[in-house]
Amino acid sequence: MDDATLTPPRIIACKRDGGALGRDAIAAFVRGATDGSWADYQLSALLMAIYLRGMDAAETAALTEAMMRSGVVADLSGVPGRKVDKHSTGGVGDKVSLPLAAMVAACGVPVPMISGRGLGHTGGTLDKLESIPGFRVGLSLEEYRAQVGRIGCALIGQTRDLAPADKKLYALRDVTATVECLPLICASIMSKKMAEGIDALVLDVKFGRGAFMKTLPEARALAEAMCAIGAAMAKPTRALLTRMDQPLGRAVGNAVEVAESIACLRGEAEGAEDLMELTYSLGAEMLLLARVETEAAAARARLAGVVASGAALEKFREIVAAQGGDPRVCDDPVGILPAARLTGEVRSARAGWVAGVDAMAVALAALRLGAGRTRAEDAVDHAVGFTRLAKVGARVEAGDLLGVVHANDETRLAEARAALAGAVEIADEAPAAEALIVERIG
Amino acid sequence: MDDATLTPPRIIACKRDGGALGRDAIAAFVRGATDGSWADYQLSALLMAIYLRGMDAAETAALTEAMMRSGVVADLSGVPGRKVDKHSTGGVGDKVSLPLAAMVAACGVPVPMISGRGLGHTGGTLDKLESIPGFRVGLSLEEYRAQVGRIGCALIGQTRDLAPADKKLYALRDVTATVECLPLICASIMSKKMAEGIDALVLDVKFGRGAFMKTLPEARALAEAMCAIGAAMAKPTRALLTRMDQPLGRAVGNAVEVAESIACLRGEAEGAEDLMELTYSLGAEMLLLARVETEAAAARARLAGVVASGAALEKFREIVAAQGGDPRVCDDPVGILPAARLTGEVRSARAGWVAGVDAMAVALAALRLGAGRTRAEDAVDHAVGFTRLAKVGARVEAGDLLGVVHANDETRLAEARAALAGAVEIADEAPAAEALIVERIG
Repeated sequence: MDDATLTPPRIIACKRDGGALGRDAIAAFVRGATDGSWADYQLSALLMAIYLRGMDAAETAALTEAMMRSGVVADLSGVPGRKVDKHSTGGVGDKVSLPLAAMVAACGVPVPMISGRGLGHTGGTLDKLESIPGFRVGLSLEEYRAQVGRIGCALIGQTRDLAPADKKLYALRDVTATVECLPLICASIMSKKMAEGIDALVLDVKFGRGAFMKTLPEARALAEAMCAIGAAMAKPTRALLTRMDQPLGRAVGNAVEVAESIACLRGEAEGAEDLMELTYSLGAEMLLLARVETEAAAARARLAGVVASGAALEKFREIVAAQGGDPRVCDDPVGILPAARLTGEVRSARAGWVAGVDAMAVALAALRLGAGRTRAEDAVDHAVGFTRLAKVGARVEAGDLLGVVHANDETRLAEARAALAGAVEIADEAPAAEALIVERIG
Repeated sequence: MDDATLTPPRIIACKRDGGALGRDAIAAFVRGATDGSWADYQLSALLMAIYLRGMDAAETAALTEAMMRSGVVADLSGVPGRKVDKHSTGGVGDKVSLPLAAMVAACGVPVPMISGRGLGHTGGTLDKLESIPGFRVGLSLEEYRAQVGRIGCALIGQTRDLAPADKKLYALRDVTATVECLPLICASIMSKKMAEGIDALVLDVKFGRGAFMKTLPEARALAEAMCAIGAAMAKPTRALLTRMDQPLGRAVGNAVEVAESIACLRGEAEGAEDLMELTYSLGAEMLLLARVETEAAAARARLAGVVASGAALEKFREIVAAQGGDPRVCDDPVGILPAARLTGEVRSARAGWVAGVDAMAVALAALRLGAGRTRAEDAVDHAVGFTRLAKVGARVEAGDLLGVVHANDETRLAEARAALAGAVEIADEAPAAEALIVERIG
């Protein structure tokens, strides 16, 4: 289409009829979303047409780039080294970003990480960080750039001027039944990540009961589409497809997940082998993409080295201090982090093997405890959640602990205990072992 | 879906996924369009989903009924007899409504007719009527009801309180590329017609170069869908599929079409056999649906009778007078109707047979003369247009008249003469005769 025909109805009609939109048409759409020159009803009509007709790889890449350029793109070219970030599609108990960012930065790779808040059943990195007294996630892009340059890492929230087209389009998608659309999901995630100023990206694409993508093929399609966008934008992107049936690690909440992250950085996250394994695997990919290592085994060894030496924990301490948080959290998490007023144990009624811990059920129970939010404007209770959760494959006797509930009122405590008891399945036989990391793409 | 799930996103998602919407969901959508409880972006997302996923017969009937009930439904139950109207999907030179309404009303069948204005290449009945000095189309629904009761016919424009959901949805469709969608087109037409208070409806569904539907199968699909809606609403509906390749009759414009309509009512429309044939055919269907005749031949004879007796022209005079128009137009159309300042003839360059008169080319030429409008707020020049147009199949010698242009400035006169000359195709052989009325449905 030439410029004269780039009117909203023409562009909508092109996609409606199954055509591929050119770069100019996509740029006009995204500009229209950003400056208001397209009416909301025209944006939503095109979103529905995209939902039903799809977008090819070139269109999705063009959409991502236009959305990225709808606002400020952070310029980290003054920071030496290849900047690498990680993005997860969202899981339960997924606190990987905290130890991972510190470990990778401790290996000398700058990690500029802009995260979101939790909504629905998945927790948000920002909410977890804010459970550290004083921790400030609302840095300006200038502060962010300076901090990445100075200490190699910043963990901040999305600023208003980052990919504003995504904010506009996401708000419309949310109320017009056009959320679950692969090219729109990909462009939304990737436009924000690419605006961070990164050189490469590692994706943790989850599938299973506790993930947005319920099946491996869905997760694979999402991962392939995002890796294709990264390639099209000359930002090497690699994805791990990881299982999300049980919570990751043994804590679900905010402060409790920070505490587990610190244990992880100390190499002391007892029983959270899955969390350590995933953190090391994602970290190794980041070191490879940063080109500071060329072999995965060497990369993992380097990560284990910064944990063993204490350099990873020190890097986390530096980040916390730089962003106004109380650095003593690294030494005394229990003393510094907020604690819930009440705790209650859940114990097994019988002997057997833990055959399943329903991540979605645990997440919804945490949400009802107050650890998450159902609407963006809800407040979060940083203290509540679950700890010492049983892991799939463990042998339990009658009376053994399956988890601890942290709550701030009796009613919710009782509800959460019942929910956790219902979420853990005890079987007479040991379950077959299932790999956590199933595929590597890109 | 039960009531609790009748939220806009749920309803949109149902159609998005190819489901059929229930009556409650459709009622919620139409109510949302009318009272503003659905946002425009939600309405347009559902319109696009309907465009791409379609609607079955039951959904389309439910949509029509909900749109009809979104405003006032005229109550003509106090008027004796079965009330029957005619609707045309729009053609060039299509002034049938004027003589038809008078003829059928002269046969004792009440004709409550609510019409639209012209837009784009098709003329509007209201614009034609307004070329009669003083004629008032803006009657209230109460005046309309009273006039139908008193003289058996009223020819009015759409009032604000008639099917307001259609106005809202049409305005959105127009700017979101969702106009050309069969169930939405059908519901739009039928909801307004059903709100007139009719007992039965005859449809003139046109196909060809000068029609919205270019092919017979498209016209058939539209006719079948509208007849199904009529049946579902217990309002017997019959459609004639009619050819629209050349203009209907010999005049195209506003005042010139009123003059031809009056000639038709006098039985003096020389050379406009197609106009007479279509008027009699549609009128016969109306008399059958009104149950005042049971045989088509008798119905046609009765219509010919009211023309021959002058009763049809007298009925038209009554209607004109009742709506404030100058009734002398019936006796002296040339003296009463507005006349263009300039006329210019177009003559054949050679001998042969008229093989085609491109209705679309003539319509666009009339539009450029000022006889129509490209935007709803444009004014119409009632005086301009074409008369004495050649008809397909006629033998012409070099220098014979192909038509007369009526214009109000020299430039447009010259342009229109050139356009008309280009629109008429002269061939060496007589074209094969083609039926005007091709099918009868319902």
